[in-house]
Amino acid sequence: MTTGFEGVFPAMVTPMTPDQDIDYDTLARFADTLVESGVHGIIPLGSTGEYYALSAPEREAVVAATLDAVAGRVPVLVGTNAGATREAVAYSQQAQAQGADGLLLAAPYYSLPTAGELLEHFRAIDDAVDIPIMLYNYPGRTGVDMTPDLVGRLAELDNVKYIKESTGDMTRVSEIARRFGDKITVFCGCDTLALESFLMGAAGWVGGVVNVLPKQHVELFDLAVRRKDIPAARELYFGLLPVLALMEGAGKYTQLVKAGCDVMGHPVGPPRQPLGPPDAEDIAALTEILRPFC
Amino acid sequence: MTTGFEGVFPAMVTPMTPDQDIDYDTLARFADTLVESGVHGIIPLGSTGEYYALSAPEREAVVAATLDAVAGRVPVLVGTNAGATREAVAYSQQAQAQGADGLLLAAPYYSLPTAGELLEHFRAIDDAVDIPIMLYNYPGRTGVDMTPDLVGRLAELDNVKYIKESTGDMTRVSEIARRFGDKITVFCGCDTLALESFLMGAAGWVGGVVNVLPKQHVELFDLAVRRKDIPAARELYFGLLPVLALMEGAGKYTQLVKAGCDVMGHPVGPPRQPLGPPDAEDIAALTEILRPFC
Amino acid sequence: MTTGFEGVFPAMVTPMTPDQDIDYDTLARFADTLVESGVHGIIPLGSTGEYYALSAPEREAVVAATLDAVAGRVPVLVGTNAGATREAVAYSQQAQAQGADGLLLAAPYYSLPTAGELLEHFRAIDDAVDIPIMLYNYPGRTGVDMTPDLVGRLAELDNVKYIKESTGDMTRVSEIARRFGDKITVFCGCDTLALESFLMGAAGWVGGVVNVLPKQHVELFDLAVRRKDIPAARELYFGLLPVLALMEGAGKYTQLVKAGCDVMGHPVGPPRQPLGPPDAEDIAALTEILRPFC
Amino acid sequence: MTTGFEGVFPAMVTPMTPDQDIDYDTLARFADTLVESGVHGIIPLGSTGEYYALSAPEREAVVAATLDAVAGRVPVLVGTNAGATREAVAYSQQAQAQGADGLLLAAPYYSLPTAGELLEHFRAIDDAVDIPIMLYNYPGRTGVDMTPDLVGRLAELDNVKYIKESTGDMTRVSEIARRFGDKITVFCGCDTLALESFLMGAAGWVGGVVNVLPKQHVELFDLAVRRKDIPAARELYFGLLPVLALMEGAGKYTQLVKAGCDVMGHPVGPPRQPLGPPDAEDIAALTEILRPFC
Repeated sequence: MTTGFEGVFPAMVTPMTPDQDIDYDTLARFADTLVESGVHGIIPLGSTGEYYALSAPEREAVVAATLDAVAGRVPVLVGTNAGATREAVAYSQQAQAQGADGLLLAAPYYSLPTAGELLEHFRAIDDAVDIPIMLYNYPGRTGVDMTPDLVGRLAELDNVKYIKESTGDMTRVSEIARRFGDKITVFCGCDTLALESFLMGAAGWVGGVVNVLPKQHVELFDLAVRRKDIPAARELYFGLLPVLALMEGAGKYTQLVKAGCDVMGHPVGPPRQPLGPPDAEDIAALTEILRPFC
Repeated sequence: MTTGFEGVFPAMVTPMTPDQDIDYDTLARFADTLVESGVHGIIPLGSTGEYYALSAPEREAVVAATLDAVAGRVPVLVGTNAGATREAVAYSQQAQAQGADGLLLAAPYYSLPTAGELLEHFRAIDDAVDIPIMLYNYPGRTGVDMTPDLVGRLAELDNVKYIKESTGDMTRVSEIARRFGDKITVFCGCDTLALESFLMGAAGWVGGVVNVLPKQHVELFDLAVRRKDIPAARELYFGLLPVLALMEGAGKYTQLVKAGCDVMGHPVGPPRQPLGPPDAEDIAALTEILRPFC
Repeated sequence: MTTGFEGVFPAMVTPMTPDQDIDYDTLARFADTLVESGVHGIIPLGSTGEYYALSAPEREAVVAATLDAVAGRVPVLVGTNAGATREAVAYSQQAQAQGADGLLLAAPYYSLPTAGELLEHFRAIDDAVDIPIMLYNYPGRTGVDMTPDLVGRLAELDNVKYIKESTGDMTRVSEIARRFGDKITVFCGCDTLALESFLMGAAGWVGGVVNVLPKQHVELFDLAVRRKDIPAARELYFGLLPVLALMEGAGKYTQLVKAGCDVMGHPVGPPRQPLGPPDAEDIAALTEILRPFC
Repeated sequence: MTTGFEGVFPAMVTPMTPDQDIDYDTLARFADTLVESGVHGIIPLGSTGEYYALSAPEREAVVAATLDAVAGRVPVLVGTNAGATREAVAYSQQAQAQGADGLLLAAPYYSLPTAGELLEHFRAIDDAVDIPIMLYNYPGRTGVDMTPDLVGRLAELDNVKYIKESTGDMTRVSEIARRFGDKITVFCGCDTLALESFLMGAAGWVGGVVNVLPKQHVELFDLAVRRKDIPAARELYFGLLPVLALMEGAGKYTQLVKAGCDVMGHPVGPPRQPLGPPDAEDIAALTEILRPFC
């Protein structure tokens, strides 16, 4: 189950209690619900999973609970990013030891490493594990851009097989597919470019709104990639875009995704502070825009 | 010693061994050297101190070692930023318990909190301590900007007394001084705007290059703020700017600061990975540009 | 011929002599060559046509020469942008009087009008003509962005029927098509997003590289829009992308397009100063990358 | 009078009738008022003078009327920018022939010339005149940045003696002064950085708000540059900053400057379309903020 990832992979939320502690029971049920909805993989501890706000023991426990709940039905990729290379290596080895099928790894936050330093960082992780690595290019949060030239070099590493593209620059998908498509597979990482990305060769979609509308995401993948029915895919996509654009555009992605789960009948609690629940106006707009899907 | 901070405060490097472990002996000697050079305060665990790459026990030990070495000769402000509010609160309380004279706090990294969420974040920290807080506005790393309007609201909190301005936008210094100068004091946080900031009312300068050239930084402060000899201050500043501009402009600030300490005869070892030592070409340029100060 | 524009519309270069005067004979022959290559329309005096560098008499003469050469075989849309509304109105009325089938209109340059001012600007032009207007959103040159909300309001004007989208932000194509598709038709205006744009509902492509490779552009349109053979379209597109990315990425679009015409056997002379011919290294790279198409 | 420009130079508005035709009588009176207020020079046809929206005959007539009204009392620098080099050369030669004391020249708009092309552009103008040229670096409108390296090369041209710095990046002032201060003199071109610029070595200030508050601008220059009374200069500056920040920050600089002239009792009419008069809310805010100066 560890090769040939494709399809819809939710960057799963980390459910929390009103006191912002992790709610492992809800996490297990929610992971099960996602798998039952047809998603093709699960990613705990991505950005939407608030990995950056969890302690080391919490991170280990979230991985264990997710793997247990998924029980091998779909692959589980674990987000193992951190501020230091040694810390990312340790999280990655731990996730592999726990049974993860792959890793999701953005650039380390805050330190703004150069291209050469990023290469050494990923080389250190690559040397330490033997499960597939999905790069995660998200300069909006990390402050550094993995350019196509750098992606080409990273794709030479043994385990680097995928990239979640979250720059928002559509030309990256076609450029990586065109230049390095034999070595690395693109996953869409910008919800409002999902169909475009599939049509340019992306094999999958890692997103946060999948937590809210998993079946619709799966159906879009089926129409666009498997059945290649572009008109039907576009119609479905245009119906989803108001939701995707609202979530992407408000500067409150994680907050709205968690609130959206509540609206759709799967309450997952608030985000952990510094993030907070959206205000009443946001909730009202969200509820209105999700009405067609309830 | 906990009120009325002003002057030159190095964001002190964290010395490391060749294996990237913290070198506490060198740290103690280096802190002493800085104090002997005349700096007016010391800040461990700022950005240049690589706080984001240290473990919790390391952070506690760095604070202890710094306080011990400084021994009350100048105030010590501790960087206590983190990814979650609860974590930043814990680090802040710990620093206060250890004897810190103040705190340096950027926005939490990676999560891109809104203005309202930042206000709640800092309120939580403010409620948990009773030593002065220096805000640290560095959108280049955190991805979020504390606008002057937000700064005005944060300055209402009991312990928020200072702001390190690191946007690179000079108008922020005058705007904050003009609008909120009775409640909050600006420290320059962009080395290539230091003299301008002093002339607009900044009371101090928190920087990384101070590690390399502490006496020159102190002299600039004396000329500009204490003696108000602008022509002499400008002449000194224009002599320092080639160094400051090189360090700020290369995308390798921490790396070059640490290398610059070596060039000036105070080796502090490499940064912790993902950052690495600068390459030979960078070292050569740095050595050349520091020659007038050796 | 004035309604239902679709397909490939070159933003035709303005051929010049070595002294940078307009070469009307070459212009006539070049326009004929483009039409014979199968393009679906011709646009003189767009950005690639260097309208901003031509005198008023030259602009009138270029329109006359183009209309004469095209002789009604395909529609001719004329770029009539200017620095003042009164000037743009005058150019637009003149183009209509000369027989143009439509107008291409970016935001006025340099003055950075607000959304409300842009609405009044286009209303004035709309009131003065009765041929279709293609908006041209190119904030990279004009400094102002026609947001989707503004486009929706502009699309209420009688003659505003098309928009050339040149922001480089792919989400604009789907958002405009989704929200205002019944009132305004998108043309791709960013060469490296052409196929994506067609798949999201763009009816055409206005570009500069069409001058260099007209048949390939027409074939891409045929495959993607008419025959809906996505795999074949993607294969052709990926073959074209190295050329398109080189032209778009070098900060010398007009210069490289004109040089590319020479490489392909249709010399059109240099651009008018301030632009100059590309240097030898650029020409060599261009020649190499165009080799498969010679 | 053609050498050693220093002090406050208004980028003079072009007064217009309600029908947006140039009001030459008001222009003559207004220029006289400015000179009587103590400004050290006058610049017709800058950005605030809406040069980009005037016809060639209008531009010639504005220069003639300004020179006639100023009558040699202070130097007159004429804005002669255009879209093509040949056009800028012609305007520059014409201005010199009319009696201008110098030229103000931004990068040509819309075409985004490269650094090498800008050098050739300014070389062509430099060869065609023998009065001082003030470069005008305003990437917010022209889309191209004259970097310090390029400024250093441009300063080698015979007539290039000044630069109006309008990037908003304060470090440019000190970098140009420090590296090329023997060849080129900086004028502040960003109102909210005026005092900082003077303190870093700027010899003057070219602005639009000078039209509204000429005496206060002149007094700031006197305090900061001539009397070197920094505390008094800062107090005056902090009093002006609310006005300067409002004008700079609203995306309606020319519109608010013209409205501000009206508020201060010197009506100059509306801007030419595409710009329009500010709305009632803007006028109210402007009136309120200008009250202390009435």
